[in-house]
Amino acid sequence: MKGILYGVGVGPGDPELMTLKACRLIRENEVIAFPGQSPERSAAYRIAAEAVPEIADKTLLALDMPMTMDRKILGASHDKAADRICAFLSRGENVLFLTLGDVSIYSTFGYLQERVERAGFEARLVSGIPSFAAAAARLGTSLVSGRDQLHIYPAGLPEGAPAEGTVVIMKAGSHLGQIRRQLRESGKEAMLVENCGMAGEKIYNSVEEMPDKAGYFSLLIVNDEAEGK
Amino acid sequence: MKGILYGVGVGPGDPELMTLKACRLIRENEVIAFPGQSPERSAAYRIAAEAVPEIADKTLLALDMPMTMDRKILGASHDKAADRICAFLSRGENVLFLTLGDVSIYSTFGYLQERVERAGFEARLVSGIPSFAAAAARLGTSLVSGRDQLHIYPAGLPEGAPAEGTVVIMKAGSHLGQIRRQLRESGKEAMLVENCGMAGEKIYNSVEEMPDKAGYFSLLIVNDEAEGK
Repeated sequence: MKGILYGVGVGPGDPELMTLKACRLIRENEVIAFPGQSPERSAAYRIAAEAVPEIADKTLLALDMPMTMDRKILGASHDKAADRICAFLSRGENVLFLTLGDVSIYSTFGYLQERVERAGFEARLVSGIPSFAAAAARLGTSLVSGRDQLHIYPAGLPEGAPAEGTVVIMKAGSHLGQIRRQLRESGKEAMLVENCGMAGEKIYNSVEEMPDKAGYFSLLIVNDEAEGK
Repeated sequence: MKGILYGVGVGPGDPELMTLKACRLIRENEVIAFPGQSPERSAAYRIAAEAVPEIADKTLLALDMPMTMDRKILGASHDKAADRICAFLSRGENVLFLTLGDVSIYSTFGYLQERVERAGFEARLVSGIPSFAAAAARLGTSLVSGRDQLHIYPAGLPEGAPAEGTVVIMKAGSHLGQIRRQLRESGKEAMLVENCGMAGEKIYNSVEEMPDKAGYFSLLIVNDEAEGK
């Protein structure tokens, strides 16, 4: 029998935000993969290890996935990672791939899933808490209620973004200068959480307070409701 | 000392998708509130009870919150629920309010939080898995990757919705006829999950397959990526 690849969201940082299912799957399976050059340098691994310490005794697969926009380098790293995973699947062993936040939202898992399914194996997804949900909880605010719309952007704030509803900008750190200018022009207020639930967590409650540059895990919320409070 | 109100997301239906934190808070606290006329008739309570059976021995507060758009009836029910919660908080007891999915996304918790904070008490939010993340996992598909945008609408598909990215329509059941017409006109494909992770779960993989009406917990995903697969 072939093994199954599980993409498992470990949530945004706080190990207690892991699901019962993620913890059970880690306990029940032997091969644990994650993005990173080593377990210590993988945020997803470190979160899981705090919730399930016995993970350290498993077969650990550190999959080097460089953060680059170069499609060729990216493709090659995904190919190599998928090959390493398939080697276990073909021997009948399940592989868990741990990923930050939720597995369906801006995760590298999709690239691995595509390749592993093409090679004839089954992949399953296990949800995790998305970073924007945790950031809203940390700020003590609802994102949306009633008839509000929720718009989520991966990095900057695009021109012509819908004026209605709540806007979340993930990985806003390197685009903050421009985003702050755009928000000032439209007269909107926003909040920023850097490293939500991780070491070095910082909260900024207004556009004025925010720096023009922040870390990679910076999440910005433009929330009409929060302003009204 | 005053008690604290915790808004706790219990996820979309599968009790294993509850977080470690939600389970711990239920075990550690005595007063558990939830929307519904009785524990048996509350989806949020039933999910929590499957994961933490000892909840049945706690002080249970069934808060009747009618599903209506009448602002006066809604406001009165939120006032009454908040009053019942504040009675415990003022005696120094914490209250957990269980809510389906995530607490910051289309939850009634925000209305209670507002009132409870106005009365001088503290409220905290504890994230849960949002239904759209679980629906994507159930369908085995990513929602967004790379530079995709994610747009979430509470009920129907508004005219002039952004053409780019992935669109999620929550509670699509009663609007399905119109949504199907809109999707056919724009030539887009979509998938529907009814009662994700609950009894009576149904999956529709195309606009053609879908009925014109489905249950309250119906979630539709218009995903350019999924089409390409």
